[in-house]
Parts: sequence; structure tokens; C-alpha cells
Amino acid sequence: MGALTGVRVLDLTRVLAGPYCGMLLADMGAEVIKVEVPKKGDDSRSFGPFVNGESAYYMNLNRNKKGITLNLKSEKGKEIFLELVKKADIILENFRPGTMEKLGLGYEELKAVNPGIIYGCVSGFGHTGPYKNRAGYDIIGQAVGGLMSTTGWPGGEATRTGTAMADILAGLSVTIGVLGALNYKFKTGIGQKVDVALVDSVVSSMEIITQIYLTSGKIPERIGNRYESVYPYDSFKALDGSLVIGCGNDKLFSLLVGVMEAPELLEDERFISNAKRVENNMHLKPIIEEWLKDKKVDETVERLLAKGIPAAPINTIDKVVNDSHILSREMFVEVEHPKAGKMKLTGNHLKFSETPTKIKTPAPLLGEHLNEVLGNILGYTQEEIERLADENLF
Amino acid sequence: MGALTGVRVLDLTRVLAGPYCGMLLADMGAEVIKVEVPKKGDDSRSFGPFVNGESAYYMNLNRNKKGITLNLKSEKGKEIFLELVKKADIILENFRPGTMEKLGLGYEELKAVNPGIIYGCVSGFGHTGPYKNRAGYDIIGQAVGGLMSTTGWPGGEATRTGTAMADILAGLSVTIGVLGALNYKFKTGIGQKVDVALVDSVVSSMEIITQIYLTSGKIPERIGNRYESVYPYDSFKALDGSLVIGCGNDKLFSLLVGVMEAPELLEDERFISNAKRVENNMHLKPIIEEWLKDKKVDETVERLLAKGIPAAPINTIDKVVNDSHILSREMFVEVEHPKAGKMKLTGNHLKFSETPTKIKTPAPLLGEHLNEVLGNILGYTQEEIERLADENLF
Repeated sequence: MGALTGVRVLDLTRVLAGPYCGMLLADMGAEVIKVEVPKKGDDSRSFGPFVNGESAYYMNLNRNKKGITLNLKSEKGKEIFLELVKKADIILENFRPGTMEKLGLGYEELKAVNPGIIYGCVSGFGHTGPYKNRAGYDIIGQAVGGLMSTTGWPGGEATRTGTAMADILAGLSVTIGVLGALNYKFKTGIGQKVDVALVDSVVSSMEIITQIYLTSGKIPERIGNRYESVYPYDSFKALDGSLVIGCGNDKLFSLLVGVMEAPELLEDERFISNAKRVENNMHLKPIIEEWLKDKKVDETVERLLAKGIPAAPINTIDKVVNDSHILSREMFVEVEHPKAGKMKLTGNHLKFSETPTKIKTPAPLLGEHLNEVLGNILGYTQEEIERLADENLF
Repeated sequence: MGALTGVRVLDLTRVLAGPYCGMLLADMGAEVIKVEVPKKGDDSRSFGPFVNGESAYYMNLNRNKKGITLNLKSEKGKEIFLELVKKADIILENFRPGTMEKLGLGYEELKAVNPGIIYGCVSGFGHTGPYKNRAGYDIIGQAVGGLMSTTGWPGGEATRTGTAMADILAGLSVTIGVLGALNYKFKTGIGQKVDVALVDSVVSSMEIITQIYLTSGKIPERIGNRYESVYPYDSFKALDGSLVIGCGNDKLFSLLVGVMEAPELLEDERFISNAKRVENNMHLKPIIEEWLKDKKVDETVERLLAKGIPAAPINTIDKVVNDSHILSREMFVEVEHPKAGKMKLTGNHLKFSETPTKIKTPAPLLGEHLNEVLGNILGYTQEEIERLADENLF
């Protein structure tokens, strides 16, 4: 049994933020029915990389879900969708705001057939406010929310985070929203709409960076890999690459100085306190890098960790995928897909003691579970389903 | 009423990942009781920036919580804590793994007094696996999980995301975990432990980046602000700064070419399809930047948006905080703190139609709610509390 066994979700989402939410719910045991456009499906089915013609992008984000196709522009398609809404707990969509209303399937319409329905939606700017109709791609969320302007190097360009972070933050956030709403529904029977924007999700993630501006009026700049409040807490170049070291206090700094065999640094006025080290980070970094210039990353990290000094390599993705610890956390899971064959997906990162997450089924082929969903949940016969298929409904 | 009204949380967390989770739960209406170390409190109380001597870092992440102090190393302190555990639904902690066990307050001990308790924990590497005892700061999560190696510019250094993203991802993730577990508890009465690692949370966020390596063996590199699968989807330099443009398909590209009055680009073999544009991004970017070199960011964004082309400015934090749309989403909220006075916090980004989040109370002063919590929840009298205070318990 999963944490969400018994919860039924209709997932109308495409590409990334919404599907990531649906994936988390499905991994926790919810019955997630992905509703796709007939013939074509989720846009991400055409995004590479491909394995035997199947999109790895799609297969990763849609494992554990059931898949049906449904033409939501036809009257009969809407009717079937509303029948499903009556039997569901949660609806997810990440269309541009207003799209569901245009279809006659906005929250008010869904609520009319099921007052307990929870309507989770993700969009670039949210369903209210002056920019609500603007398209919201990940790069736009990162740019507008302030993340890009504070990522990168002094004198360099504003930098996009290497993964679609605005989408991921919004996907995690709408998951929290629908689960919060589910709690409220259990207690009251009342559903609601949960509106999550990429931009808002990025703004929330900026925490202390925003507070720096709000309290001092100082605009946070790009400061590379160091941190505003402690030093040394940065990346440092070594012989064969870079590593990170995080010395959050005087004790850790004195341990580092011990490993460096440089006791004079403890007496140096420039580095005498954390505040001084932050102020003089540009003087301390070259000293540490001079010490590291003939040392290998892996050996140095081991040596620092042995002394209790927080340190780590900067892993490229091949290192991540083959790291013994990360593997022990089951962060990469092999599945058998009917077309792609054996492949590896990213595992679920929520580790439950009582209801462990599992990847039970691969992502659905387009329309794979039409008979099962329409038959079992709505009671349609095989003949009825075939007749509707002839009307281009699926 | 909030989505989580009636849910009681004991929040032992410090600094960022754990407190961010507690904040989300409190904003949704849970009764979150922050349990701090006597005299000193959460480490982040000493992190700047400060307003009238109070930490804005702390005040932002701990609004809506109640605060008590409790010496968990004393027998009587443990006893009081276990009494509170009996009356709680969720415990949150982000100590290094093993710390709670050393105190005699590990999950097994808490479960013994309350089988329904949900134990959410955040750590750098998680509670299992070979690196479980390593310290896990944000920069370490970003480095080990692969995020740093894929953020930045070709030929440049691996780059830390400008906010503590590993902490934020883990904070969001453990929130999902405890809410999933809460659903299971409602149905079965059974609690559980939810173990979330910074590193795992980053790994999960890498989605398609990891799939590129898993399916092709190609190690994803730093590619600046562009995206692997569509182009133009990048930042571009204009007269007075940079802007982002996201043209996900041929139609949007032809609209862009229309605004640029450069119809020859549509005939150019190098840019004839999305795949070609991705391949020849290094040729297309200078053409777009040549067009932008005498144009202002804001005017150009307006012009592009008017034609339906996704575009946005790259906001610095002052722009974020003063943006009319972001303000309309109530992403900055004024509160009155008894010591700091009137100040602005980042609002909650989950917009519920039925149970809107609210910032009802400022972050607690150290031990502010001791009488209320021990009196109302555990039935201690004022005299008993004063006597225990004399024993250095609070």
C-alpha cells in the first residue's frame, strides 16, 4: 500500500511542471490517469532523448500513471471527462490560464459536478494578476522571479540554473497544495482550486536573498559560488578539478587550517573571525587554492572529511549516476518498457518507512488504459468504447 | 480555517530546509510549535540581515509558528518532549542523522509513545547509505547532486545556484512526504518516518539532464542559458541589459522573424527547423543580438509579448519586489514584529481558493509561547513552569 493509495487523480498536464507533480502522486500510490490529446499525446512524447523511438523525457515523468486519450473539444468527450471528474479526488492541469474555461471545463464547472474536487493548476504567472495570460516557460520563471540575476559570476552574465528549476519548484509546490487541500477535504468534504505559478515558486525560493534587499535596499549581485554569510564556503580549484568546502564556523576553519598546516592563518587579522573571512574572501580563496594546486580532488575530499571538515566533489552527471551512496538510496531504478525495453529512470526521493514508493509500471503508451479506465471506472462496455473510437473521440 | 487547521507539528529544525517545511505547514494553518535550544535558539537567529537586532532570515522562515525552548539533554526535558509527541501529528528535524537517537528520541522511541506520529527528517545525504554521517550543507547538495556541474557557461566554472536551492528542494520535498504520510495516517492510524536528503532532492530535480546521460552516455555540460531541445530559448543582450526569449516551435520563430523584419532567416538552411536552430544556435544568437543592440529591454519585451512571443526581462531583486504582477499575487506581505517593527516577508506562493494562506503572527521571540504550549496542551500550571525554569529546562 502506498501513502496515497485510494486517491484518484486526473492528470491533464503536459511536459514538465504538472507531470512532475502527477509523478510524485503516482509514486506515492495514487491512481493517476493521464488524459492526453488523441493521436498526438503530451508534447514531451516528441522530446528527445529517445530509446527505441520512445521519449525518455516522457517515460521518466509519467511512470506509474495510466494513460487514456480523450478529445476534450467534442461534446461527448467533455461528457466522459465530467463523468470521470465525479469519480476523482484531484484534477491537475498546466494549460495557459483560461484554457479550461474555454473548453467549458473550468473549476466552476467541475465543482458543479463534484464539490469535493481538488483542482491543482500550474502556470507561468498564475491565474490572477496583470500578466496571467503571458506564456510561462521555465526560463521565463527563472528570469522574472530573480533567480537568474543572482546566479553566476561577478562581472559575468545572469545565468539560468542547469535544470528546469522553475518548473520543478512549481511541480513540488502544487503537489504540496493539492495534498494540503486533500487534508481539508477529508475533514470537510469541500474541494478547492490551488493556483501555483512558476514565478511565485521561484520568488518563494529566494528566501534570504530577497530579505537582503527588503531590509537594506542593497540589490543582491552575482557572487559566484560563495555565500554571503560564511566563509570559506565556496568552490576551490585543485589539481584535477574543483571541490567545495563549507566551513560554517571558527572551529571548522581552525580544522581546515590544521590540514593545510598553515597555523599563521589563525593569527592573520584578515581571517580572525567569520565576519572578517567573509569580508576578505578574495584574499583567503587564493591561499586555499595555492595549497590545493598539487592535490587531487578525491583524495583531498577524503582527507578533509576524515578531519570532520564538510567537503565534496563537484559531480558531473556520470559521477552522480554511479555514486555508491546515491545508488544505495535507490535514486536510479531499472524498469522494463514494452517498446523501449530495459531502461533506467530517476527514482523517487521521498523515503517512507511504512509506505515505500515503487516504480510499479512504465509510462503508458498513448491510450493504453482506455478500456480499463472507461470500463472499470465508468462501466462502459467494449462495444460502446469501440463505437466512440469510431467517432474520433480517443 | 486553513487547509491544515487541526494538525499539530513539533518543529525541531534549524536554519533553512526544515524551517521552510515548517513555514509551509504553518502558512497552511497547522499549529507549528518550534522547539529551540534554551538561551540560544535556532542558529539562524544570529544570521543577518538584522532589523532592530532581529534576524530577517529567522523572521521570514518562522512566521506563523509558536516558539518554546526546551533542554532536550535533560531527563525532564525529554519527558516533556515525549508528552508533546503524544499530542502531535508530525515531528520535523534536520539534525545530522543519529542525533535524535543519541538523545534517546529517535523515531523508534517516539513511535513507542505515539504510533501515529509522522517523523519528517531532512539531512544532507539521508539516514541510510555510506555517506549518511557526512555534513550536508546546501553547497554540498548542489555539488554532489549534479546541479553545479550543469549550471554555468561553456569553458567556465561549475556554478552554484544563487539561492540555497538544495535546501529549498529538500524543504518542499519533506513537506510532500509528511502530507502524504498524513493521508495514510487518516486512513490507517499508522504513522511513519519520512527521510529526505538534500542530495536526493537535487538528483530528482535533474530530470531530463540525467536521462541524457542514461540513454546516450553523453555527459551533460554547461551550456549557459540555452536549452538542449529548442532554440531560440536563451538570454540575449540588448542596449541596456539582457532579456530572455523562448520560441518553442516554428510558428513562434516565424513570429520573431516578423518582428525582426528579417524574412531571410526563414529561408536560411541553418535555421529551417527547430533541430537545425538548436544545432546552429551559435550562429542565430549573434543575429538576434545584432538586432537588439540598439533596443531597450522593457520596450522589446512589450513588443514581443504583443505579438505572442514569449519573452521577459531578467529581473534583479528590486524589480521582483516592485513588480505590479508579483505584488498582485501577494508575494510580499507586511507584518508587525514586536521588536523589529513593521517589515516585509515573502508571502506564501500556494494560492488556495477555499483556505487562503495568511501570515497571522510574526516569528516567535525565543521561548515566547512556553506558557501557552505547556499550559494549554499539557496542563502545566504557572507555578510548575516557573519551577522547571529554575532547573534550567527552558
